[in-house]
Amino acid sequence: MPAIHLTQARAPLTERVRAIDEHGQPQDISIPAERALTVFVDKHELVTLMTLGAHPEWLVLGYLRNQRLLASPHDVASITVDWDVGVAAVRTRQGIDDLPQRTAKRVVTTGCGQGSVFGDLMADLDDIRLGDAVLAQAELLGLLNAIRLQESTYKSAGSVHGCALFQGERMLLFVEDVGRHNAIDTIAGWMWLQDAATQRGSDKIFYTTGRLTSEMVIKSAQMGVPIVVSRSGITQMGWQLAERLGLCAIGRAMNRRFLCYSAPRRLRWQTELARLADPDAPV
Amino acid sequence: MPAIHLTQARAPLTERVRAIDEHGQPQDISIPAERALTVFVDKHELVTLMTLGAHPEWLVLGYLRNQRLLASPHDVASITVDWDVGVAAVRTRQGIDDLPQRTAKRVVTTGCGQGSVFGDLMADLDDIRLGDAVLAQAELLGLLNAIRLQESTYKSAGSVHGCALFQGERMLLFVEDVGRHNAIDTIAGWMWLQDAATQRGSDKIFYTTGRLTSEMVIKSAQMGVPIVVSRSGITQMGWQLAERLGLCAIGRAMNRRFLCYSAPRRLRWQTELARLADPDAPV
Repeated sequence: MPAIHLTQARAPLTERVRAIDEHGQPQDISIPAERALTVFVDKHELVTLMTLGAHPEWLVLGYLRNQRLLASPHDVASITVDWDVGVAAVRTRQGIDDLPQRTAKRVVTTGCGQGSVFGDLMADLDDIRLGDAVLAQAELLGLLNAIRLQESTYKSAGSVHGCALFQGERMLLFVEDVGRHNAIDTIAGWMWLQDAATQRGSDKIFYTTGRLTSEMVIKSAQMGVPIVVSRSGITQMGWQLAERLGLCAIGRAMNRRFLCYSAPRRLRWQTELARLADPDAPV
Repeated sequence: MPAIHLTQARAPLTERVRAIDEHGQPQDISIPAERALTVFVDKHELVTLMTLGAHPEWLVLGYLRNQRLLASPHDVASITVDWDVGVAAVRTRQGIDDLPQRTAKRVVTTGCGQGSVFGDLMADLDDIRLGDAVLAQAELLGLLNAIRLQESTYKSAGSVHGCALFQGERMLLFVEDVGRHNAIDTIAGWMWLQDAATQRGSDKIFYTTGRLTSEMVIKSAQMGVPIVVSRSGITQMGWQLAERLGLCAIGRAMNRRFLCYSAPRRLRWQTELARLADPDAPV
């Protein structure tokens, strides 16, 4: 495992505020936190992320990974988050060459949350090999059931996106953020901190409550994860990229229902499971 | 009205693809387009936006407005969009001073869609005066009914966000995009092209299907629109900014129900309307 010194600067995830409903009655409700975190890499200001604040160190590490500014977690010496000033200070072991140039090209993407991807989104896509992973339909239903049972900020306050990393139907990590790209970056950062077996994406499944846009498909592929499951739908570019990569994109997934948009060979179909019960009933 | 030469490069908004459902049966479905549009300003490459493609010229104009790179629509001579190459070429009358420096500071925001706001998001907020606009509860319900009746890409293909601009309960413009920040930017661009009365935000209401994050509240305030209505909820920073600006943020708004999070003085409360019928029944 990489030896990185990390703070654990978790901040409160919700706040109680008073709203007034349509009857004119006060309602005390929870809303999700949203805070600015400015990332400095070796004292160079890189970006300000707006985040829920649950796992800022993993978020920053995964952001650097998914922006392809770091090739390996071993390049990072420490990540120090201080919420009092809203700063994440990253110290690398060797520095990042040409940081200003490499962060100059700007793509503002579709998805919720972290919209900006440096460099060429499509670069190196053709070099990605996603392996032969197959998910059984029963495992997919188990995964959806685990999501249904998960306690979450969404259930208490709404207005956040959730992401999760699975191995079969076993949930390894569940992450929420006000932006879903923050959530997937947090997962990417966490994966880099694990042992070799968990770092490998080829036997993992990525779940998101958000839409399967181009950026979500690309990020999943960059992490080597060949199967992506969403509660929502897919966009045209997300679908085209999934087809091109041989990535299995599954959307509209809830309870026993889903649509497989691409690479259906990665599902071991057990269609009798769809007929067992009312399709909208929980598994 | 500003004399800007604009193309009208509308592109197809949906595509039919074949998916496989949980029974193993093929389903032909519509998915929303998502295409890359690279914006050049006076031959300087600025940004690549991922968009549905419904109104790219308004989107580009509103993007430049909301990024505060342009002070007036009169600064623009032409916007030429060519989908064959995915390029929007903006020609200004005088050039933009210090464009590289002004686009150097990067904030990756929470919202769906266009995440990146140049410069200091909070700059000039304290100079914003939003006027005294008041919306009657009956008008709010009329607005929500207009949204309910609106034909949309969302209804045919899902996976897009909708925004609309209202004057009272009269819908002036309805815009969808794969990213909701694109949708609000498109409205900002359209407003700049209208006559003086429609350019003014102070008597308008902004509606969005997306969450009321910091960036949505800021963009609304920058357009001078004092009332924002959402089907979704609000984040902590969206709420704090709305309180500070005296902007009326209304969320969870559907049919006859809503929550007013801030500036309730901007609603003319008619709470008897909430009791008239089943609160979940359409108006």
